[in-house]
Amino acid sequence: MLKRLPRQTDPKLLVGFETSDDAGVYQLNEELALVQTVDFLTPIADDPFTFGQIAAANSLSDVYSMGGRPLSALSIVGYPSAGTPEVLEQILRGGLDKMNEARCTIVGGHSIRDEELKFGYAVTGLIHPKRIWRNVGARPGDVLFLTKPIGTGVIATALKQNRASSESIEAATVSMTRLNRDAAEALASLETSSGKESPVHAVTDITGFGLLGHAREMAIGSGVSFRIDHNCVEYLPGAQEAAKEGFLAGGLKNNREFLEGCVGFADRVAEEYRNLFFDPQTSGGLLIALTPSAVQPAREAFAKHRVAARPIGAVFPKSSPLIEIS
Amino acid sequence: MLKRLPRQTDPKLLVGFETSDDAGVYQLNEELALVQTVDFLTPIADDPFTFGQIAAANSLSDVYSMGGRPLSALSIVGYPSAGTPEVLEQILRGGLDKMNEARCTIVGGHSIRDEELKFGYAVTGLIHPKRIWRNVGARPGDVLFLTKPIGTGVIATALKQNRASSESIEAATVSMTRLNRDAAEALASLETSSGKESPVHAVTDITGFGLLGHAREMAIGSGVSFRIDHNCVEYLPGAQEAAKEGFLAGGLKNNREFLEGCVGFADRVAEEYRNLFFDPQTSGGLLIALTPSAVQPAREAFAKHRVAARPIGAVFPKSSPLIEIS
Repeated sequence: MLKRLPRQTDPKLLVGFETSDDAGVYQLNEELALVQTVDFLTPIADDPFTFGQIAAANSLSDVYSMGGRPLSALSIVGYPSAGTPEVLEQILRGGLDKMNEARCTIVGGHSIRDEELKFGYAVTGLIHPKRIWRNVGARPGDVLFLTKPIGTGVIATALKQNRASSESIEAATVSMTRLNRDAAEALASLETSSGKESPVHAVTDITGFGLLGHAREMAIGSGVSFRIDHNCVEYLPGAQEAAKEGFLAGGLKNNREFLEGCVGFADRVAEEYRNLFFDPQTSGGLLIALTPSAVQPAREAFAKHRVAARPIGAVFPKSSPLIEIS
Repeated sequence: MLKRLPRQTDPKLLVGFETSDDAGVYQLNEELALVQTVDFLTPIADDPFTFGQIAAANSLSDVYSMGGRPLSALSIVGYPSAGTPEVLEQILRGGLDKMNEARCTIVGGHSIRDEELKFGYAVTGLIHPKRIWRNVGARPGDVLFLTKPIGTGVIATALKQNRASSESIEAATVSMTRLNRDAAEALASLETSSGKESPVHAVTDITGFGLLGHAREMAIGSGVSFRIDHNCVEYLPGAQEAAKEGFLAGGLKNNREFLEGCVGFADRVAEEYRNLFFDPQTSGGLLIALTPSAVQPAREAFAKHRVAARPIGAVFPKSSPLIEIS
């Protein structure tokens, strides 16, 4: 909708919302730019402290996925009048816990009475204007890495109907509360150890549009096609079962309807895996297009930073379908 | 609620939320700090373009009231699934109109399906770390200025019941859509023309807690008392009638309950005026504590910037009641 409005022309806006990138980047001077994003959620976990942690990790993710360092945050709260202050306090404490981990300072916030509970942050980070990881720039030959398993949407949907196993809830929670900072630091270490041109060609974080939705934006914006091997993608424990049993949220169906035209599935890809590719993720991992010579150093850097990143596919010259899943 | 949480210790946080100031201030270097705030509203006007303008002016106000220059904004949208895209587009266009006027660049945003329409912005501005107008610092002898009329809450409440005159709606709309930029620029001009010490001792903008609520925070934080002459305050046309006819929103009653203990009204102050002092304002004016020698220059600066600011009272040594209205 923002894209339908008259454009503002400001040469200091290095990354705006026209390219559906993860965050906006605004230049302050030759060496400093702000990277800014806002995100808020309805509850995705039963425990309020955990929900606060997830909301914070989810808001911070856009800064990490651009290559920025989080600096300050404003909290955003919608809270039902029937809610107890103790629950809200636990949510805020969970958020604070992750903000402390990210060394990001909460400078204020706004709260409003709301029918449905909502929580999140507007986050500002710092970034060097010449070292921005865009969600476009992938080149044929690049290898695609994904840094977290997928399936948080189907597990959350199963949870709401008391049909998720404790193992799958636990694994989804660990994944959603984990900051993308370690993954970003592993990537940044590849840049400093390499020459002038960055081996990191494109980065985005996987959120509401699912792995395929965010992959589509990267492929279209880069003018390339992707081939992904569905056996190389890591799925959360219980995600396959939840998808098979039909715990498909409205967002998944919307994503599938919108995205189906740009993707070709090989016959061998079972229906539940197809759905997982459309599954909206909360606080998902980074999708990275990396130059081939950096693949081995990347494996080592991810291992060093204890990030379970996996190569899931590769980049090809533009063809049809835009994204092929085999 | 935020104040109940464990403190983060960050020496670069120059103004946090502990003092209920209008915005947070985060230092970048010796000459530059970010001033950051977030605000969003449910509709306060029937026309969506106008509502967008008001929401933007209201969000920007906290940056102006600290003495900052708005730089970038993230939009925050809660939109009912039954709403039409045209209405949302008009709201966004209204917001963009005011952001353009403020030379503030929209860098992104987040929207969510919501039962009730909500709209606002997280705004980031720049400020010099040594030139921050706090909401505390008023000194005995200072003169209190108010830069806009009050009464937007009672008029909005009357409007919701189709009982507001077109004249009062028009005047409230003009007031709420007006940026506090001109008032802030008038104040800044006093600083540059004066010596080293700023004649501007404290500034805050009048919003949800009403004139008295924000005056109370300034008085308590400054360790002083205020005396305000209710005849010197400017009221929106129709505000007195709306208050007399009982168009008192829930927020007004909450404010009155919370604040009544710290205020003493002279007998001559009629009931409807008392209520107006508690009336929650949207995009209200600036309340300013100014050193006495700057009063005449301030009058001239306000006139030059076409701001209808008025002296409404004065600052005294701390006594009881905290705020006296005569």
